[in-house]
Amino acid sequence: MHQDKVRVVFQPYGRTVRVPVGITVREAASLAGIPLEYPCGGQGTCGKCRVTLPGAHSQPTPAELTLLSADERGAGSRLACQTRLHEDTTVEIPESSMPLGKNQILAGRSAAVSAAADPPVRPVPVTMPAPTLTDDRPDAERLLESARAESIEPALLYELPGLLRGHDFRGTAIVASGRVLDFAGGAGEPPCLAAAFDVGTTTLVGELLDLRTGAIRGFASRMNPQTVFGDDVLSRITYASRGPEALREVHNTVVSALNDMLAEMSAQAGTPVKCIYEVAVSGNTTMEHFFAGLNPNALGMVPFVPVARRGLNLDPGRVGVAMNPRGRVYVLPVIGGFVGGDTVAGIAATGLEEAERPALLIDIGTNGELALIHNGRLSATSCAAGPAFEGARISCGMRAAAGAIEAVDLGDDVQATTIGGVPPIGLCGSGLIDLAAELLRKGILQSQGLFLTRDALPGSLSPALRDRVVDQPEGTAFVLARADETRSGRPLFLTQRDVRELQLATGAIRAGISILLKRANLEPAQLDRVHVAGGFGNYIRLLNAQRIGLLPETLREDQFSFVGNTSLEGARAAVLSLGARARAEAISCATRHFDLSCDPEFQTEFAMAMFFPDAPPD
Amino acid sequence: MHQDKVRVVFQPYGRTVRVPVGITVREAASLAGIPLEYPCGGQGTCGKCRVTLPGAHSQPTPAELTLLSADERGAGSRLACQTRLHEDTTVEIPESSMPLGKNQILAGRSAAVSAAADPPVRPVPVTMPAPTLTDDRPDAERLLESARAESIEPALLYELPGLLRGHDFRGTAIVASGRVLDFAGGAGEPPCLAAAFDVGTTTLVGELLDLRTGAIRGFASRMNPQTVFGDDVLSRITYASRGPEALREVHNTVVSALNDMLAEMSAQAGTPVKCIYEVAVSGNTTMEHFFAGLNPNALGMVPFVPVARRGLNLDPGRVGVAMNPRGRVYVLPVIGGFVGGDTVAGIAATGLEEAERPALLIDIGTNGELALIHNGRLSATSCAAGPAFEGARISCGMRAAAGAIEAVDLGDDVQATTIGGVPPIGLCGSGLIDLAAELLRKGILQSQGLFLTRDALPGSLSPALRDRVVDQPEGTAFVLARADETRSGRPLFLTQRDVRELQLATGAIRAGISILLKRANLEPAQLDRVHVAGGFGNYIRLLNAQRIGLLPETLREDQFSFVGNTSLEGARAAVLSLGARARAEAISCATRHFDLSCDPEFQTEFAMAMFFPDAPPD
Repeated sequence: MHQDKVRVVFQPYGRTVRVPVGITVREAASLAGIPLEYPCGGQGTCGKCRVTLPGAHSQPTPAELTLLSADERGAGSRLACQTRLHEDTTVEIPESSMPLGKNQILAGRSAAVSAAADPPVRPVPVTMPAPTLTDDRPDAERLLESARAESIEPALLYELPGLLRGHDFRGTAIVASGRVLDFAGGAGEPPCLAAAFDVGTTTLVGELLDLRTGAIRGFASRMNPQTVFGDDVLSRITYASRGPEALREVHNTVVSALNDMLAEMSAQAGTPVKCIYEVAVSGNTTMEHFFAGLNPNALGMVPFVPVARRGLNLDPGRVGVAMNPRGRVYVLPVIGGFVGGDTVAGIAATGLEEAERPALLIDIGTNGELALIHNGRLSATSCAAGPAFEGARISCGMRAAAGAIEAVDLGDDVQATTIGGVPPIGLCGSGLIDLAAELLRKGILQSQGLFLTRDALPGSLSPALRDRVVDQPEGTAFVLARADETRSGRPLFLTQRDVRELQLATGAIRAGISILLKRANLEPAQLDRVHVAGGFGNYIRLLNAQRIGLLPETLREDQFSFVGNTSLEGARAAVLSLGARARAEAISCATRHFDLSCDPEFQTEFAMAMFFPDAPPD
Repeated sequence: MHQDKVRVVFQPYGRTVRVPVGITVREAASLAGIPLEYPCGGQGTCGKCRVTLPGAHSQPTPAELTLLSADERGAGSRLACQTRLHEDTTVEIPESSMPLGKNQILAGRSAAVSAAADPPVRPVPVTMPAPTLTDDRPDAERLLESARAESIEPALLYELPGLLRGHDFRGTAIVASGRVLDFAGGAGEPPCLAAAFDVGTTTLVGELLDLRTGAIRGFASRMNPQTVFGDDVLSRITYASRGPEALREVHNTVVSALNDMLAEMSAQAGTPVKCIYEVAVSGNTTMEHFFAGLNPNALGMVPFVPVARRGLNLDPGRVGVAMNPRGRVYVLPVIGGFVGGDTVAGIAATGLEEAERPALLIDIGTNGELALIHNGRLSATSCAAGPAFEGARISCGMRAAAGAIEAVDLGDDVQATTIGGVPPIGLCGSGLIDLAAELLRKGILQSQGLFLTRDALPGSLSPALRDRVVDQPEGTAFVLARADETRSGRPLFLTQRDVRELQLATGAIRAGISILLKRANLEPAQLDRVHVAGGFGNYIRLLNAQRIGLLPETLREDQFSFVGNTSLEGARAAVLSLGARARAEAISCATRHFDLSCDPEFQTEFAMAMFFPDAPPD
């Protein structure tokens, strides 16, 4: 059988596409919605689109022979703009080829979503006859008939006569659920874009998507500037509850950050922001309330009541989002006061609601959220983990971006890996888990969370590691990177205080897991699957997460998967598919909400889980 | 069989209600949506609610014995606030009992509409449980469940937490098609109102309606202040086509007049304008475009293309209407460039679209509109009649309001009847038709439209009438009212120029009728019914309309009915009934539009119809 298509998996994104034999990796990546940078315009002169792929594909071009060494070529390195695919393969994209700041994991089911047949907004090419004496149909009827739409956005009526006549009654209608939102005149294919946002307590991540293909056209991330009003949701609720002025301030702060990201991503795509017709926002309940500008007062006091549960369809003008004013802003439905659209998105992304055997979703963020399916019933709860895993409140902490130490091994000395392979700038969530686990194994850190002083260190410790333990006035600390190893020229420490923050975060999540399982009469070993989501790094090492007590010790590797930023994935699904929205609404409606803050057991569990598990040092 | 209900017809409104035996005329009028004034609060002390009704009802009360003479009582005069109904009857409401300015005819099918079971907006009393630890449902879910609604207006979410908690989770939800628009806290019945407008080229008429009962709570009318931009639609289109600034000026002019009327009617009802949740507007296509603020340029040039045909659902904020900002503004669908929502309303009000035999609707206004049903097919056209029938461009012309001469007979001298029975102020459309017909009969006016000079008057003319013919420098004129007979102390003339204006109006409408019938191969005698609509008076005399050539001579009295202001009636139906809207959309869609301006026959017919028919003087 003649095989005219090849199957290509892009890693670490986990996206699969079937593409015609002979197209370039660049074209396949574009079809898969994978962002790569081509500063030379794909001429093969800059070498920035380096990828690794096994298999017999096109012969290296002169450009590849010039830019890649024989060793590199031997290890499978190729340039995405030069290499043509000849067989099924897996393309590994190194951090160095990812556009700056685009190292958030784009995990999961995205390829399926890109192919969605039911986008909320779609462009429809139209050509209409001009009015004549025998055809005096109104402009709107003319457009509706040609676009096969049912209604027209009233605001468009105000411009329609000029738009149609200015372009000889030819162009593209932008249609949302049978309603014409916009008309772009002319014969070309005007950009028709959407943006998806994960609005986290600490981190904001956004993607710009092509509504025609689902391909990613831009990416941006940054700290949530609302941190000036407090690190956690409760302190921000307290601030915003001072009055309408304060709420508006908190609301405007996040909306202007998202607007900056929309502008940044539009610049990446080379399109104006008015080509963005849909925006979807996923976040915890408080973040979604702040984004929408809804009154959070009742979220700040028992029984923590949200204003609304269902997804919100908002007017961009009302929210202040700088996009096409006739577009819509969709805010994902929530489950309860502290279990938000991000958990709904996580349940959808992992297919938790369809699982036939017990499964758990742990979304590790500043507001940790947990969802369990058991006997076909979904339940969810939340725990205030604090921002340690996202790098905040950790002296050398940073979010998972280029220069973040994302993996740490302690053999005779520190072996650290940074995102992008550049000199370290700080430590992100996954690195923090690794480091703490390794320090416990080496006996440098005790199960109560105390550093041993230099004098008390075990004799078996290597001199290099011993040298990294320093007694400072504020307490003993560990030198993760010496001044000469970092980009800033300043050393990176893990301090006693940092360990305390980690203990709070770990304890809260672990206590939440315990109580959720206990209520369902489940042991961790009975879980068919444990999905860990979060934007704190590109992976998580189960053994290390278990060593610090974040995950139950009895969990096996085959039960466990790391699914990345499912909140962003849910927002992406929502801008690309009406079916995905309906699914989100159904999940939100079907999930039972537990409030741990009312559970007397929680404080006990939390206090116990604050301690690291006892285990013999290596 | 025990009869516990009586049937009451209110005239001249033509409204019928069935009400319990023993209720007062006042209560029955309220149920029928008939406006009456009770300055004394219904105490029977002011005598302002005088009505006439035959039959054996309650005995006259002491108040009636004091305020009504024995003669008046003998003629059936009663006070509406005192008299209790004991049997089927017809209540005549004299002009003097109608609130000032409320003398526009409210004809037709209104009682049916008042009882509509499908209002676009309805108030739903709700009582919700307050949130508890075991019931942490969001505010919106709580309200939706209690109001049995499906969604909630996002703007309401912003106030919901405060509104619910401020009124112990009890109040009234205002629901539009399953969508909660508003929440009024407390145990009472908050006002829930709608307004209907006929936006004519020359005259604006509005009604304030109770959405619970359909009763009329207020009434207002005034000249359309857009006349400063021109008397007819084309001159206003020309003005507005200068640019966006000019269009905004024309738009704002009518919207502020309607806002004044909303305020005036709200004051009559004693309710704030924010209790108005629906507004419907009916008018010709140009008036509807101006009201909505839509670009009228294409309406001003061949082939006269409207921006939209279907009804518009607009945001009050976009149009600038001062009502509840979460309410909606509905603009009736149109048929073509010069056949608007007023004709759609007229077709609906007269049931023209269901007629099995040929029937014609003639809506006499500044823009005359004609609709014909024949063999189940609707067609419509329009003709620029000018504002003569609404009193503009006539030297002593005025709209049909108190003090307007609405009927004229010439016996030996002028016998004139004014609206409200007060001294004459001017002449309205129905009076103009009467006067011209009588002048023709008396031979004072010739069929070409020329006044005979005083010397040339027929010898048979009475001295009193002869005295009223005056030769002035601008031509011969007829003194309709002498200086000592009018309110202002200035005489009222009908001048040669006035007659020319009437000829233009009559000729245009008559030519339109001729061509519409000719295209359908119909003779006037084949028409089963001719409905004449318009706001130019309280009635029309067929013989006089025929004498001046406005209506075909072969038309019989039994074919003819005067249906009053059907445009207002259509707007009223649209604010009270979704079914009425659907019917209007269906009529708009089903009616074929003829453009007379492109018809070479029209100019010939028009020129011929300009002459009054030859007929022997009395």
